[in-house]
Amino acid sequence: MFAFAIERRDERARAAQLATPHGVVETPAFMPVGTAGAVKAVTFSQLGEIGAQILLANTYHLLLRPGDEIVARMGGLHGFTGWRGPFLTDSGGYQVFSLAGLRTLDEEGVLFRSHLDGSPHRLTPERAMQIQMNLGADLVMAFDECLPLPAPAEAVAAACDRTTRWARRCRAEHRRADQWLLGIVQGGTDLALRERSARELLELEFPGYAIGGLAVGEPKPDREQVLAHLDPILPEAKPRYLMGVGTPEDLLAAVGHGIDLFDCVLPTRNARNGQLFTSRGRLSIRNARYKEDQRPPDPDCGCPTCRTASRAYLRHLHLANEMTAATLLTIHNLFHYLDMFRRMRQSILLGRFKEFREGALHSLSAASGVESQE
Amino acid sequence: MFAFAIERRDERARAAQLATPHGVVETPAFMPVGTAGAVKAVTFSQLGEIGAQILLANTYHLLLRPGDEIVARMGGLHGFTGWRGPFLTDSGGYQVFSLAGLRTLDEEGVLFRSHLDGSPHRLTPERAMQIQMNLGADLVMAFDECLPLPAPAEAVAAACDRTTRWARRCRAEHRRADQWLLGIVQGGTDLALRERSARELLELEFPGYAIGGLAVGEPKPDREQVLAHLDPILPEAKPRYLMGVGTPEDLLAAVGHGIDLFDCVLPTRNARNGQLFTSRGRLSIRNARYKEDQRPPDPDCGCPTCRTASRAYLRHLHLANEMTAATLLTIHNLFHYLDMFRRMRQSILLGRFKEFREGALHSLSAASGVESQE
Repeated sequence: MFAFAIERRDERARAAQLATPHGVVETPAFMPVGTAGAVKAVTFSQLGEIGAQILLANTYHLLLRPGDEIVARMGGLHGFTGWRGPFLTDSGGYQVFSLAGLRTLDEEGVLFRSHLDGSPHRLTPERAMQIQMNLGADLVMAFDECLPLPAPAEAVAAACDRTTRWARRCRAEHRRADQWLLGIVQGGTDLALRERSARELLELEFPGYAIGGLAVGEPKPDREQVLAHLDPILPEAKPRYLMGVGTPEDLLAAVGHGIDLFDCVLPTRNARNGQLFTSRGRLSIRNARYKEDQRPPDPDCGCPTCRTASRAYLRHLHLANEMTAATLLTIHNLFHYLDMFRRMRQSILLGRFKEFREGALHSLSAASGVESQE
Repeated sequence: MFAFAIERRDERARAAQLATPHGVVETPAFMPVGTAGAVKAVTFSQLGEIGAQILLANTYHLLLRPGDEIVARMGGLHGFTGWRGPFLTDSGGYQVFSLAGLRTLDEEGVLFRSHLDGSPHRLTPERAMQIQMNLGADLVMAFDECLPLPAPAEAVAAACDRTTRWARRCRAEHRRADQWLLGIVQGGTDLALRERSARELLELEFPGYAIGGLAVGEPKPDREQVLAHLDPILPEAKPRYLMGVGTPEDLLAAVGHGIDLFDCVLPTRNARNGQLFTSRGRLSIRNARYKEDQRPPDPDCGCPTCRTASRAYLRHLHLANEMTAATLLTIHNLFHYLDMFRRMRQSILLGRFKEFREGALHSLSAASGVESQE
């Protein structure tokens, strides 16, 4: 049912096929975030049109509404939502740990209150597995302790060790053969801790590994160091997922360190706020300079939005609070991300990843945003 | 550039082709409302997919934002929005007359304040023509005085007579050969006034006629009487447009009185509020009974939403305030309306309109809403 087959390596980057019960994902791949079982402002049909192959859904949100047991009775996420491709669910931990003040944490797990109605809920490694088995995604995540950085060294070490103990409990509890459970490496920016975390998880023989606890406030060079350090430690033959990262620049770097899977809310969230990612940097559609600009958002982009809509029209819809603006901007931003991944993958297959990355970074750094360039 | 060719009559109903500079509209036809140059929550691509042939845009909203002169410089509504099919713009009058307290009215026109920023604006028959020539729709509307009903008989008569004087000024001011300017019959529910209004407008030889001032509070039988009375007065060979009407039942009745064109916010607005139109009546997706209902909204519907989404999923998205809910429900409701028009048209072409209407009304009246039936 599952397989991970590397087609080609180019330096440390890899192009692979990840087979799941709901189809193949060509990696490196970006997973649009479908928080509550839908990617905000777009339909599955539109996601298919722009080439999304796998979606991420959030356990925390689905647990609270509509509830994992309802989703299970509706046939899991696939039956409930109608998305036919693969899903990945997170463990819920990241959202719960962000609920500062609404949660208490101990070795057993986390007690927290719903941000919707204040109702109390408990999340433990076992419960996170039961929920994710109910949700029925193809890829599911271990329940880890994720700290915001910077944090005291002892706190990072303690969270890292607890993450290993919890990973063991997750491994014991998880029982669906049609799901791959991925372990999550923690350890902040401490390379020794990261290595210890990775080696302990390797003993548990997960079918794939995620790197968590990054893009949570650390300096970018520290993040790159962690990726470079983990690259030779993580098994070559298994998929690697860098959680919650990031900007186009971050993604180009991480693929260069051998990462296969990514998710991030940036393209979708920024779209709703009127910010577009383009080949020449970011473009804020509210800017008055676009009032009568008949050009598409990105003249080098072939997405459904750039094929039909001008900056002037998108600016108008955004300022008029028309939902269609969120839809059109989300389609562009997701296409931009997905297309960048398709082109990265192609460059790896052709042994030209380094040139591709340098060219893309050059375009992005030549301008600090489209605005400064035109 | 323009033509209106009746293909077949069936009793008083007509199936026709309305040729415009931006394509043919098969009538009877429903025009989705694209207030600010977009139909709320959907894209033009989605509108094309469900078979919309012509859109309505609101002069009032476009005048205030982004402004008709900007739209003109961007190539009119077609160049600005990218919608390639025909557009109709209203005159702005209806919205302005709804701004109770923010407007003053005299023979010259209306002085009003923007609901957005309180800025003062003037709308006169001449200005309404200039704005609509700037917007560049295929079909444009005379500037009329529209009263909410019930109203004193003298007020209705005065508004009706003023509408004729204003129609004359509109006719004199309008100069674009690539637009058809339609006159608007007023007169409330007074049949004699309606007839006078129609006959005065006929002298001005508009290429088509609209019936305004209905669906503004009058009893349904009164409205039907007006339509039946005007049917033999309005010229057979010209298109007829019933403004702002209405429910599926209203539309079935009005097509039977020889109306060709319709617009209404019901399908789009109700979708955003969670109400679906189905072949068996209305369905409120918030209803707790749909919590685990795996059926599509309307099992007899072939729209993109009913093909992929269950009531349980749509209810979840709607309650979670996901924009995608508005999109999926809008697609269904518009498809339901457009498909009803396609089937009405087909029944006219086959000489079976009466059977079709009776069958449709029977389905709708057998249940007062889907809820009561299941």
